[in-house]
Amino acid sequence: MNTYKRMQALGRRPAAPALVRHIAVRRADGATLPSHPACAASDPQSCAHALVDARLNEALFRYERVIRDRFDAIEDVLRSLSPYQHDLDFAEKAQVMAEQRLGLRWPQSALEHAWVAGVDMKTLFAHATFEGVARCVASADFDQAAWRTALPLNVARWREFGYHTVDISPCADGRLQGLLPFVLRTVPDEAVLVKAYAGALFDIENDVADWAQRQVHQYASGVFGLDYLKVAVYHFSSSSPTQQGCAAHGSHDDVAITAAIERLYALRHAVAEQFGPDMAPQVVLIGVDTDLDAIRIHLPDISGRLHAQRFLDSAHLYRQTLGLPADVALGHIEQAVKSYAHDLGGLGAKGNESGMQGLAVAWLVANFSQIEYVLHHHAGRYAVIGHDEQFICVGDMVPRLHLRNQFYYAHLDTVEEGAADLDVGIRIFSGLNVRRGLPVPVLVHFQYSSAVPDSRARAVQRGQRIRAAIATRYAELCSRGLLQCCVAVSDRRGREPLAFVADDASVSPCMH
Amino acid sequence: MNTYKRMQALGRRPAAPALVRHIAVRRADGATLPSHPACAASDPQSCAHALVDARLNEALFRYERVIRDRFDAIEDVLRSLSPYQHDLDFAEKAQVMAEQRLGLRWPQSALEHAWVAGVDMKTLFAHATFEGVARCVASADFDQAAWRTALPLNVARWREFGYHTVDISPCADGRLQGLLPFVLRTVPDEAVLVKAYAGALFDIENDVADWAQRQVHQYASGVFGLDYLKVAVYHFSSSSPTQQGCAAHGSHDDVAITAAIERLYALRHAVAEQFGPDMAPQVVLIGVDTDLDAIRIHLPDISGRLHAQRFLDSAHLYRQTLGLPADVALGHIEQAVKSYAHDLGGLGAKGNESGMQGLAVAWLVANFSQIEYVLHHHAGRYAVIGHDEQFICVGDMVPRLHLRNQFYYAHLDTVEEGAADLDVGIRIFSGLNVRRGLPVPVLVHFQYSSAVPDSRARAVQRGQRIRAAIATRYAELCSRGLLQCCVAVSDRRGREPLAFVADDASVSPCMH
Repeated sequence: MNTYKRMQALGRRPAAPALVRHIAVRRADGATLPSHPACAASDPQSCAHALVDARLNEALFRYERVIRDRFDAIEDVLRSLSPYQHDLDFAEKAQVMAEQRLGLRWPQSALEHAWVAGVDMKTLFAHATFEGVARCVASADFDQAAWRTALPLNVARWREFGYHTVDISPCADGRLQGLLPFVLRTVPDEAVLVKAYAGALFDIENDVADWAQRQVHQYASGVFGLDYLKVAVYHFSSSSPTQQGCAAHGSHDDVAITAAIERLYALRHAVAEQFGPDMAPQVVLIGVDTDLDAIRIHLPDISGRLHAQRFLDSAHLYRQTLGLPADVALGHIEQAVKSYAHDLGGLGAKGNESGMQGLAVAWLVANFSQIEYVLHHHAGRYAVIGHDEQFICVGDMVPRLHLRNQFYYAHLDTVEEGAADLDVGIRIFSGLNVRRGLPVPVLVHFQYSSAVPDSRARAVQRGQRIRAAIATRYAELCSRGLLQCCVAVSDRRGREPLAFVADDASVSPCMH
Repeated sequence: MNTYKRMQALGRRPAAPALVRHIAVRRADGATLPSHPACAASDPQSCAHALVDARLNEALFRYERVIRDRFDAIEDVLRSLSPYQHDLDFAEKAQVMAEQRLGLRWPQSALEHAWVAGVDMKTLFAHATFEGVARCVASADFDQAAWRTALPLNVARWREFGYHTVDISPCADGRLQGLLPFVLRTVPDEAVLVKAYAGALFDIENDVADWAQRQVHQYASGVFGLDYLKVAVYHFSSSSPTQQGCAAHGSHDDVAITAAIERLYALRHAVAEQFGPDMAPQVVLIGVDTDLDAIRIHLPDISGRLHAQRFLDSAHLYRQTLGLPADVALGHIEQAVKSYAHDLGGLGAKGNESGMQGLAVAWLVANFSQIEYVLHHHAGRYAVIGHDEQFICVGDMVPRLHLRNQFYYAHLDTVEEGAADLDVGIRIFSGLNVRRGLPVPVLVHFQYSSAVPDSRARAVQRGQRIRAAIATRYAELCSRGLLQCCVAVSDRRGREPLAFVADDASVSPCMH
């Protein structure tokens, strides 16, 4: 999406709000959108719930603008450069513009032969994208300072609810990449694991391994009584359910929900079978309406079953409690969660019913702020309800970058295992970039532990192995420069935030 | 190796012993072999150590003959069939002979067009090999009954020494595939994990995951105070050190030892860094002389360091104590281990010094039986000191089959990660089979937990994914029928011992 469209979506210009509202109620194909389930007012900005943290919303919106600007500028700069590519002083001109507007330098090798056959825009585009990611990571402390400590859900709250770890598997879909700080207002700290898979179809064996390591941590530190919570997150589109739902499940919401429930059961079963029935982790299912960022929370009934059609609906609860004083509204939500649990005959929470209820209340209230965020800053419904990612992240989650539609993320250790996830990503980018002649930027990223000898070298090796496998799988795209892959590593403890791995000092690390 | 050579090696015919001894002291290239370090007698069968379990040796030798016969018969049968392949009644003849001599039936599809262009020997060879493996697994209870319960090292002994798990990573080399019951006289039970890698270069992250799961098991069952022992096993050839050592390390013993030590340090470091310094597993290094099956045990010194040149040598100790009464000999060995530990300034065994010493004594004494096994049944030094494997096993260890040079084993989850290990295996079989026109039989095997839903389906899927990756990586060999790959799964608890996965009911499951 270019800057102009992006500005519309963000409602950044004084003239924009009316236009944005128009987009919000009428889709490009002329279909009328459903009314907003949380806010009935004709002006979405007029809705203001007593439990919403308006200052936090402002801080998050400033963050969104900073990040979007950084990436939007890339296409603008390249378009501006295009007319000059055969000029004698093109290389200097290009470097000056890159430094001034993007804060980077192009690899000289990509510019110096521009006079012969034109500049290689694909390489410049990928280079700037990867540098943009690096900049987001490097300046995350600064960019996120205003909201990071203000998020209501953090490691102290998890403990209060009875959890030492919250292991979240959303879909790899870019629309869920703002899940933690935005949709769930949750601090992405060491108590939270995020591993995304196409269709939220997380890897059971991998999860059992993570579960065991987290449990040992607890035992080793002498902490008993806290549990591991596994959360699967499916998504759907309320305004375009059959088109803009989960691609991995053919945009069939029922299929997506059933599949996620089965995966949660399987994990519980696998742990119980290997380690004893009392050891199975607690599970919760969450659904996100990616048009509005409203959520559904499905809690397990007393026998452990999850029900596709029985859930707590944040948009519905927002609407019910809009206009009430904060304490009354909170009481209402607590009562709603209690009734829901009662209707289920109690919760399958291993004796931690109040903890699980507390968590549900906290996430519902937290999500009210996000509903209002979309009401105030995106006219209630995102202008682009479909895909609009900037790059694909493969391997470990790119650290400290959280924004809806910023990237498509496939958690994988090998292309051999993660091929299906990667194929979905490449298909999405064929529509977004390749059809316009722009490459798919693929960031292969792995974390290492700086205190463990050779851990960095092994992470680099893994990244290079995966890059080679990607080059083989998508040989045709690569040979045309339409897939550009870059390997990066970062230290788990932040001593090295994000370092690109150069294969050869003479070429840009980002070029394949 | 054909039956005739095999019989020489096994000394099965009355006329053989003299010939075998001749092979043992003079190699094919005319070089004189070093004298046997454990036994100075001119007749190796005259050595009889008081601590050796002669009955156990007899039982293991019967097992070795049963297994070898099963596979040796394959080439004999195929050679006998060859002259008849254009006969009208070839299919019947072939089936009768297969049933009588191999206890199997050929896939009819592989026989019926033999009159046109000759029979496809490669397919028959692979089919019979895979069926042979299945038979070894199916009849393991019977075949191994005589030695399984007689092995001196088992889960009760581990507990006595202070260990709940012994995680052993030998080299993938086939010469180490008799490691547990033969070389170390150790029961392959649930307390022992075996994961082989070329050059014993085990995967740190994978090991950390295994370590954590085993620790949780302990905590969950309320057991405290037992530890996890990691053992790396390198190997060397005393009679052909620069030719028949570890291929993954270019037959450089020093390199192999240093690499194994570094890997052990890295694992200890990785656990300590992630879970706290007291949590690191105990480590031991073992070296096997694959000519004699004698071992070296390297224990960590008080500061945790392992020394390449400071080890306990089983052949040396056997020789020192040969002729002594059992209790005197045992006292001598215990004293030798104590002195060794004293010279190291004490052992780096996390306060479990006596347990680690006890383990060393037990393995040294256990290995005396294997030294004598090779003295009595293989003239002191194996006739074939190099590779002579029957097939490659990929994935999880083929269950319940333990015999030197029976298979090359690469523990892997993906070809992408395990390519180096697999390449070494294919290279070995290019010399053993491909140059004679016979295929490389590759068994892809994964275990599942029958109690976990879909666990079997996931194991099958993993196997099929790996078969596809093998077909891609070795496309040229596959297209010529010179690599035949078969997928099998087995239940971890033994309810399904080994089942081949058929892709298509109309073809043999073993054919690619």
